[in-house]
Amino acid sequence: MNDRIRRVIGHMAENGLGQILVSAPASLEYLAGVRVAPGERLCALLLRDDGEATLYANRLFALEQGEGYRLVEYDDTEDPIACLASGVRAGKLGVDKVWPSGFAVRLMEARPDVRLALGSAPVDRARMQKDAQEIEKMRLSSLANDRVLEKTLRALVRGETEEDVGARYLANARAEGASGCSFEPLICFGPNAAEPHHETGLARLQTGDAAILDVGLLLNGYCSDMTRTCFIGSMSDEQKKIYDLVREANAAGRAEAAPGVPLSEIDRAARDVIAKAGYGEYFLHRTGHGIGLEVHEPPDVSATSEQIALPGMCFSVEPGIYLKGKFGVRVEDLVAITEDGAVTLNEMTREPIIIE
Amino acid sequence: MNDRIRRVIGHMAENGLGQILVSAPASLEYLAGVRVAPGERLCALLLRDDGEATLYANRLFALEQGEGYRLVEYDDTEDPIACLASGVRAGKLGVDKVWPSGFAVRLMEARPDVRLALGSAPVDRARMQKDAQEIEKMRLSSLANDRVLEKTLRALVRGETEEDVGARYLANARAEGASGCSFEPLICFGPNAAEPHHETGLARLQTGDAAILDVGLLLNGYCSDMTRTCFIGSMSDEQKKIYDLVREANAAGRAEAAPGVPLSEIDRAARDVIAKAGYGEYFLHRTGHGIGLEVHEPPDVSATSEQIALPGMCFSVEPGIYLKGKFGVRVEDLVAITEDGAVTLNEMTREPIIIE
Repeated sequence: MNDRIRRVIGHMAENGLGQILVSAPASLEYLAGVRVAPGERLCALLLRDDGEATLYANRLFALEQGEGYRLVEYDDTEDPIACLASGVRAGKLGVDKVWPSGFAVRLMEARPDVRLALGSAPVDRARMQKDAQEIEKMRLSSLANDRVLEKTLRALVRGETEEDVGARYLANARAEGASGCSFEPLICFGPNAAEPHHETGLARLQTGDAAILDVGLLLNGYCSDMTRTCFIGSMSDEQKKIYDLVREANAAGRAEAAPGVPLSEIDRAARDVIAKAGYGEYFLHRTGHGIGLEVHEPPDVSATSEQIALPGMCFSVEPGIYLKGKFGVRVEDLVAITEDGAVTLNEMTREPIIIE
Repeated sequence: MNDRIRRVIGHMAENGLGQILVSAPASLEYLAGVRVAPGERLCALLLRDDGEATLYANRLFALEQGEGYRLVEYDDTEDPIACLASGVRAGKLGVDKVWPSGFAVRLMEARPDVRLALGSAPVDRARMQKDAQEIEKMRLSSLANDRVLEKTLRALVRGETEEDVGARYLANARAEGASGCSFEPLICFGPNAAEPHHETGLARLQTGDAAILDVGLLLNGYCSDMTRTCFIGSMSDEQKKIYDLVREANAAGRAEAAPGVPLSEIDRAARDVIAKAGYGEYFLHRTGHGIGLEVHEPPDVSATSEQIALPGMCFSVEPGIYLKGKFGVRVEDLVAITEDGAVTLNEMTREPIIIE
């Protein structure tokens, strides 16, 4: 059996699950090494606590047998649910929350003795703690992101639009070997940077703007995600004060990261810096989120998170201050928890960047 | 009650459903006039055969009350499933096949007396028969697509890539007022045009190529979808023969379209033209698909379709011939079934187009 499948089966008992059906594409990639966009066709890995692991896949996916599971293929003339129903045991079956009801309803019709339950937790638990190979891929993805953002940012010119900059980032990312962006670049100029949910649009860069560039790429299947805020022509005193605060909050959050620390304490460390300076109400979101095969995945780094930091966890530390109608600042890096502390995956400067 | 909701409730009995929960975004737009990308939050319309219609929505969606249903809002501190569970009756509940199991499992836990079943059919049935207002939007979307494709195609130059042409189509579509593409443009040069599933890439246009441009845009929420094949520099005798056949098959399919005609007969009419000339094995896909708020929706226009054409149906007629390693030709238009026949929504020429 492969190590990852073994770890997931090990976590099943903690969640009171004797069998789970894994269908989320990133989890299938993680456990079975397959990359499938199944569309309306079934692709799912059934894991049972007796050690049975079976991947049900349409022949059209043209999968090769991987390590640690049995591959059961069906074609478009066969009923994949009948196939799956014969491998499931009576009783509780954990399923991913994204599994389409179309399959779930038909499985329940075929097997009235099976009761569905939410079942992502054992896989989430395993995916949260990345192994050395994964951490190395996360590091390479973030270092590429550093280079691509640096290049994109140094080419900023007044008059270009947020969309122009987003397109340049993507082109630079591809040139760096990335298969694409890990999310649509969030490029925000001037007052748009004061709205954390602004979408990249047609605003044009001008002198005096703070410009937020929140970008990530996908390299070897792993996501990066970082933010730098730069200033066009000069920084006002207020911009400098806010920037220094946010940078300090980012450093405080990263400094708190270590195994055994509640993630809520990392949020608190970053938030305290901003709150003590009187800007607490302008830090409008959580401090960070887990990242890996997906750009947003467990754990949550927020005031309400109940998770403790564990070696191998990767997440963002991204405090921000948003002064509505004026400007905004966010500084974001990824960190990875190690056996005895944490490392920051990004190496790009956090000194203020002023574009002449 | 609004007309569309009334029609859907009318179709529920035909499918043995006393209550359904509509969650597919396009169906919510159709029935309640709301455009929501709900992500992990619940947005669903419960329709019961006693006439009750209730939309459950997160307050963050900031919906306004529409006509013909009751709006029940919840916020992030409330459990939307508890809210929904109180409105559902015991017994069978039809759900959309795309509804995430995360919600379905929690609803079944809250209401063990409710049994889930597949329940999209009544909405699919209503959405297939577009009303006059929808047909007008479909027409405007297709006429805009005609103009945008004409403009994109007339600017073709040797040496540019398939991706260049796709990007130009999108820019032209936006300039025409479209909110975007209804699908990623399928631009296929030379031998790539012989693969019906080729993805737009880095091939460069050259003399002698047949170039397939399969494109659609989104205007006022409605999709267009059309294909033209053009020839670079000249047409060989074989290209001319194949082109004329495909154009004739397209015309034959459209000529067959009328209320009461089985959609399989429309497929047959187009396919016969190609088969009789000895190219049947090179027409590798169905003749067409329904289109409207989504680019692919019921009905299916294929040899195995059991649907009869009804007034208000809109679908594509898109025969093609694919000569592996050489070239391919496809000619696609949208048609709308009327009370006594059908109209073609596209007006762009189907004469051979040769790019000098």
